[in-house]
Amino acid sequence: MESPQALVVLSGGQDSTTCLFWAMREFGSAQVVALSFDYRQRHRIELECAAAITHQAQIPHQVLSIDTFAALGNNSLTSEMAVATELNPQTGLPNTFVPGRNLIFLTFAAAYAYPRQIHHLVTGVSQADYSGYPDCREASLRSLEETLRLGMDYPLTIHTPLLHLSKREAVLLAQELGILPLLASTHTCYEGRRPPCGECPACRIRARGFAEAGIADPLLNL
Amino acid sequence: MESPQALVVLSGGQDSTTCLFWAMREFGSAQVVALSFDYRQRHRIELECAAAITHQAQIPHQVLSIDTFAALGNNSLTSEMAVATELNPQTGLPNTFVPGRNLIFLTFAAAYAYPRQIHHLVTGVSQADYSGYPDCREASLRSLEETLRLGMDYPLTIHTPLLHLSKREAVLLAQELGILPLLASTHTCYEGRRPPCGECPACRIRARGFAEAGIADPLLNL
Repeated sequence: MESPQALVVLSGGQDSTTCLFWAMREFGSAQVVALSFDYRQRHRIELECAAAITHQAQIPHQVLSIDTFAALGNNSLTSEMAVATELNPQTGLPNTFVPGRNLIFLTFAAAYAYPRQIHHLVTGVSQADYSGYPDCREASLRSLEETLRLGMDYPLTIHTPLLHLSKREAVLLAQELGILPLLASTHTCYEGRRPPCGECPACRIRARGFAEAGIADPLLNL
Repeated sequence: MESPQALVVLSGGQDSTTCLFWAMREFGSAQVVALSFDYRQRHRIELECAAAITHQAQIPHQVLSIDTFAALGNNSLTSEMAVATELNPQTGLPNTFVPGRNLIFLTFAAAYAYPRQIHHLVTGVSQADYSGYPDCREASLRSLEETLRLGMDYPLTIHTPLLHLSKREAVLLAQELGILPLLASTHTCYEGRRPPCGECPACRIRARGFAEAGIADPLLNL
């Protein structure tokens, strides 16, 4: 078997799932592998969704453990702290912000890619994300790409197919890729509920994207 | 108590220990904290040395767990694979190379620094290191600094006091800082032996540095 060309960082959410199928179209299904991180996220359902999606897509899937974020503490994605809908007045960021989380994910993805001679990383980050995480911005990602190339002395490209898409356009891309039904297997809700709570910021953004695209979210028809 | 200004990434080796005392001189002892990583290194003695050194220096010391490198496998620093003195013909690097290890350490250090409002990171990396790890080069570190600033939207400086020093000059800096006796508490040997094996690449480089400085290594007089 030829070695794969592209690695998709798969959270189990709508965006990274869309990116998985984008990569399968761009590189060919046999050339794609998926990597998820068990970083002690509060909602294990994300990892279950990632496993279900890769199983349906017949894509090799690896889960790597990262125990460090939980040790760092101080955020609501890995602790029992309630998810605030307000921004932290000190940082201007929601308390779901884990500083550097995407930098760590992509650096570990690169370390995984290196011995396997995979040169393309794909991530579902989007600047349209309401929360404005600084590690989801184009300048951060281009800088990280350069850091990884230099720091591993290895040619790597970080692909960000959703970076400049609105949530509406992301839904339309999923439609174009023919994976709307599969989005029923993705997880978005910050409250970890399935069917989703419909009230948390993540649910609201997802709902708005589908509404603006004029498409029914298959997740709501379970 | 004022919040600290500088965080030193402390491995327990000669170089990071010298950097700890460099930081104490530059920022003041009360302004420095030390961070070590338990990444399932083969030789736990490194972490014991880091604890002993910070205890002697009366510097707050935190150990953060990283279980991911062991899951990535494929290197001799976290597995039982023998340490080769030869280079890997495929990569031109010794098999102690963990791709991106310093990138990960510094990114987690930045994530630790962020909520504590620490803006200075100090690392003992050196370009004089025989092995030429690409993540110890100046270009990689400057790029990483930029990536962390952008990706966390937070002003950070990475200090690398040993970057351009030869091993001889690093020993002379330790002498200038008055910490030569303390270097008996540091660990260098890749074989994890104390007293050191004297034969592995790390022992040989350390010995050459002391020899060229005309100073006896206190570690050898235990």
